[in-house]
Amino acid sequence: MIDIFSSVPNIYKLSSSNAEGLTLLNAFDVALLESGVGNTNLVKMSSILPPNCEYQEEIKLPLGALVPVAYASIVSDKKGQKIAAAVAAAIPKDKTKNGLIMEYENYDISKNEAERIVIEMAKWGMDRRGYEIEKIVSISAEHTVEKCGCAFACVVLWWK
Amino acid sequence: MIDIFSSVPNIYKLSSSNAEGLTLLNAFDVALLESGVGNTNLVKMSSILPPNCEYQEEIKLPLGALVPVAYASIVSDKKGQKIAAAVAAAIPKDKTKNGLIMEYENYDISKNEAERIVIEMAKWGMDRRGYEIEKIVSISAEHTVEKCGCAFACVVLWWK
Amino acid sequence: MIDIFSSVPNIYKLSSSNAEGLTLLNAFDVALLESGVGNTNLVKMSSILPPNCEYQEEIKLPLGALVPVAYASIVSDKKGQKIAAAVAAAIPKDKTKNGLIMEYENYDISKNEAERIVIEMAKWGMDRRGYEIEKIVSISAEHTVEKCGCAFACVVLWWK
Repeated sequence: MIDIFSSVPNIYKLSSSNAEGLTLLNAFDVALLESGVGNTNLVKMSSILPPNCEYQEEIKLPLGALVPVAYASIVSDKKGQKIAAAVAAAIPKDKTKNGLIMEYENYDISKNEAERIVIEMAKWGMDRRGYEIEKIVSISAEHTVEKCGCAFACVVLWWK
Repeated sequence: MIDIFSSVPNIYKLSSSNAEGLTLLNAFDVALLESGVGNTNLVKMSSILPPNCEYQEEIKLPLGALVPVAYASIVSDKKGQKIAAAVAAAIPKDKTKNGLIMEYENYDISKNEAERIVIEMAKWGMDRRGYEIEKIVSISAEHTVEKCGCAFACVVLWWK
Repeated sequence: MIDIFSSVPNIYKLSSSNAEGLTLLNAFDVALLESGVGNTNLVKMSSILPPNCEYQEEIKLPLGALVPVAYASIVSDKKGQKIAAAVAAAIPKDKTKNGLIMEYENYDISKNEAERIVIEMAKWGMDRRGYEIEKIVSISAEHTVEKCGCAFACVVLWWK
């Protein structure tokens, strides 16, 4: 039984989206659907890319599965308000080391600004570890609220 | 190891309660005990009923186990304040599809109001997916704060 | 597959730290590193010590693993502000019963004050259960903010 939680995920994907919904939670739910991670049970975690975790364009997640995810999410019901969310994953040169995922969300910024900030955060965190960076991948979403809106960006971990 | 997180839960139960405690966190802890989900390690997830997940009146959870749960919770230390929490699970007609769990909590509302709202949220989310609903189950709790209070409602997923 | 989530953790450790970072999330990330739980994917849970869970001075966690943890964390970017976080784990006399973990964090208090409060919370929760306490272990951290700071204290559960 020791292997259960110690089974380290080995694939990841990035996705993002923005959405409107009946309520703030409905907007979040629709954003998950639009990101291709809806219809699963997301378990939020703090936020490391395991060593040798392999990028996948798409990952098929079983309906209702428990899915480890790092995400940035922001909701608002203030009509006309701009919201943005972004995540970045920094991949180390040394493949025996882990990468780092960072999340950022804020009001009244663009997705480009959010993505620029979250990339800086990932760079800083890798530098703090003394890890050289091979590359950083990132994704973001922005939204202008109509009634109840959400901007969402995530890194999903999974097993192949 | 691929089966670990991908093992989708196949039973669920609903429960709710209200409680007082020494602090807000103690009140939450007592509410968990009163709901029959205390003495476990709840892992919060966003919030899908897996396909063919089977309703159980009662589920025996091992002490200290990691338990996936969707919940609404609200705490307050404002004497006399009314708080309420509710969850709803919408079950689809098509048994190959997943259901949807929604959570809602607020100040100064009754449990009936909270439950009415959370049912609307679940309906809207299923409609947004284009899923026909077989039925919706829901549960709620309300509390009037004495010193430190909590209202709590949850859907617990587990394996049989 | 029933054994997956029902595999109850059987070892635990306590750790704490304080840190500065580029942003509040970076400060949190550095605090995790300084606590010896960084470079893993922490999954926050509410907060029970399983029966017969064994204390370990140090636990080696695989890089990027999903790690169940109960933690107190507080961040601030208000220069000069004092922040503190503490956790306590109460161990029952009756070894068939579970223990209880409590978390507390606040602004403008010392680590000693935070630790005193969280110990009271753990005592109260065990008393509420009618469990006699064998002992309480606790840990805390405090920080005076320079730019972006974090105080962090945790109980990590794992399997041996």
